[in-house]
Amino acid sequence: MQKPNIPSFIPPRRTLMGPGPSDVPQRILDAMARPTIGHLDPAFVDMMEQMKALLRYAFQTENALTMPVSAPGSAGMEMCVVNLVEPGDKVIVCRNGVFGGRMLENVKRTGGVPVVVDDAWGAPVDTVKVEEAFAANPDARVLAFVHAETSTGARSDAQALAAIAHKYGALAIVDAVTSLAGIPLMVDEWELDAVYSGSQKCLSCTPGLSPVTFSERAIARLKARKTPVQSWFLDLNLVLGYWGSAGRRTYHHTAPVNPLYGLHEALVMLAEEGIENSWARHAHNHEMLRDGFEVLGLKFVVDQHYRLPQLNTVYIPAGVDDAAARTRLLNEFNLEIGAGLGDLAGKVWRFGLMGHASRTENIDYCLSSLKQVL
Amino acid sequence: MQKPNIPSFIPPRRTLMGPGPSDVPQRILDAMARPTIGHLDPAFVDMMEQMKALLRYAFQTENALTMPVSAPGSAGMEMCVVNLVEPGDKVIVCRNGVFGGRMLENVKRTGGVPVVVDDAWGAPVDTVKVEEAFAANPDARVLAFVHAETSTGARSDAQALAAIAHKYGALAIVDAVTSLAGIPLMVDEWELDAVYSGSQKCLSCTPGLSPVTFSERAIARLKARKTPVQSWFLDLNLVLGYWGSAGRRTYHHTAPVNPLYGLHEALVMLAEEGIENSWARHAHNHEMLRDGFEVLGLKFVVDQHYRLPQLNTVYIPAGVDDAAARTRLLNEFNLEIGAGLGDLAGKVWRFGLMGHASRTENIDYCLSSLKQVL
Repeated sequence: MQKPNIPSFIPPRRTLMGPGPSDVPQRILDAMARPTIGHLDPAFVDMMEQMKALLRYAFQTENALTMPVSAPGSAGMEMCVVNLVEPGDKVIVCRNGVFGGRMLENVKRTGGVPVVVDDAWGAPVDTVKVEEAFAANPDARVLAFVHAETSTGARSDAQALAAIAHKYGALAIVDAVTSLAGIPLMVDEWELDAVYSGSQKCLSCTPGLSPVTFSERAIARLKARKTPVQSWFLDLNLVLGYWGSAGRRTYHHTAPVNPLYGLHEALVMLAEEGIENSWARHAHNHEMLRDGFEVLGLKFVVDQHYRLPQLNTVYIPAGVDDAAARTRLLNEFNLEIGAGLGDLAGKVWRFGLMGHASRTENIDYCLSSLKQVL
Repeated sequence: MQKPNIPSFIPPRRTLMGPGPSDVPQRILDAMARPTIGHLDPAFVDMMEQMKALLRYAFQTENALTMPVSAPGSAGMEMCVVNLVEPGDKVIVCRNGVFGGRMLENVKRTGGVPVVVDDAWGAPVDTVKVEEAFAANPDARVLAFVHAETSTGARSDAQALAAIAHKYGALAIVDAVTSLAGIPLMVDEWELDAVYSGSQKCLSCTPGLSPVTFSERAIARLKARKTPVQSWFLDLNLVLGYWGSAGRRTYHHTAPVNPLYGLHEALVMLAEEGIENSWARHAHNHEMLRDGFEVLGLKFVVDQHYRLPQLNTVYIPAGVDDAAARTRLLNEFNLEIGAGLGDLAGKVWRFGLMGHASRTENIDYCLSSLKQVL
């Protein structure tokens, strides 16, 4: 067979202001290029222990079971669902965007019996409707919702939703892919049970890892299962043997060593900044971008009370060609912004101000580039 | 919550001669540190198309469906099983080491009905037993086996095994985690149907990605399924929309951009060397190591006819403390070798000569270090 004649891939240098990945600081890229060591090396085990402490800080939790899944956020979602939902379990799933719909799909494939609470795309999850759904289905065992909907830019009240679930003895599975480090996410204070996130949003690491954390209630549910977890790769009982305790670590899968160096560095940088400062920076920079958008006449999809500072969704102005404008931004300005997803495809643009991309210079550059394209 | 005071992680520089990860060349590490771009960027899409061509060369196949799974080899295994096995399907699973046992576990969790063919650890899969298993179970729909058992270092006859499966109308799922690029693996010539591998073995990339390839027969089986695939993340029907055709790419999950840069570079390096040269290098270097082991009086677990050149398993000499010797190698010589797994734990050592680790200087260093420790 003839060998392909393909050169090394040299990517262009972009400014990433879409829904993720966000701009990755050189410091994190450099960390990823450090020498690979074995996934059972004592030095690597020490790094994993630090990683767990750093993730607990990011999640604001004391949960023992806090770790990165060796795969993207979609796998983190699937880990939460397949471990905490058994065939026949009733699950109330809130759908106010693409990712609520994806949770629903995961619940179905796990054999759960979903009860769907729908809200408009761009609106938060309605706590009244969720309360009604539980009243009509008091045997529901799990509530699944998205804290920060990446497809719309809407924030839901995770604390209130988890409180409703607990009133009915249900667990709360929470998608925090876009919220972690960008807006307050208080896993312990809000009593969230299973939370997954992604490395490539407000942590500004490269994509491919999914931080997760599980409460004691979630672990009790896991231990009380009557059926095996359908996924071998995502079975928490097995993953625990590897990430669980430094003393008695057993081989499960080969951890993605260098990407974990990157995530470790991203979390060290978060701790250096202080998570409250990170939240404040995201909030402040959103206001700058919003003011600029108002000058340009762009209208937000999400009401200001529920708007995510790190993901700004605006309607595409009438008469503007969606794809052509985004292509110009990419080709002439090396600026990536996000297209609409699902129901909002072709109607909106999504501007991420996540992590390292949430900076004054990015906002200025974005606004000036946009002005020339509109 | 108090913020953790944890510095950047600076790994030690090791020589990796265990069962993987293997030594990663600086050129691949440098590739991983290039600027992150979006997973839907046209430049990234071009890179993905190149990646598919490079992987086809590595697998020696024309299979259209050839791509890297965004997770480690364990997830590649699970992808093959959950897509090609439906509840109630009879599956003949060959177990001659840890990874055959893991395939069995995956088949069970997918609702398949396993028929296990056991062989001794260190022996290849016995084709006569497999033929007998099919004769007794002509309705079996899948044969699952490991081409190169990482836990023992034994090579099985993938071509002969696949031919038996096809005689009975069954598909062949093949674990090629340790074989890819280290010994001949002819996916088309041998008519293998679903093959998964890992980035961190003879490709010398960092761990975390699993190259896979599927034949037209496998795709036909997938399309004829009566039940949905139980995993959302690993559902080939969905993954195909993303990796399938450059023209009409749809968002599935966020691809691990920078790790894919690394795999791309590893595959470019393989093509530069030429895969036949890579196989020859692995074979030749094995002989050097074997000669050195003979001088040291170390005995191989696997008969020379079935021995993998890239994974050399030897019995620990009588009177030598397994853990203490490996700890000395690591601490004094920065040399990682592999412990025994499963039935062979405490009895053997595994020496990897994989990819970039398959070099004269590594062999010399390994033999001289070992001499001082024994």
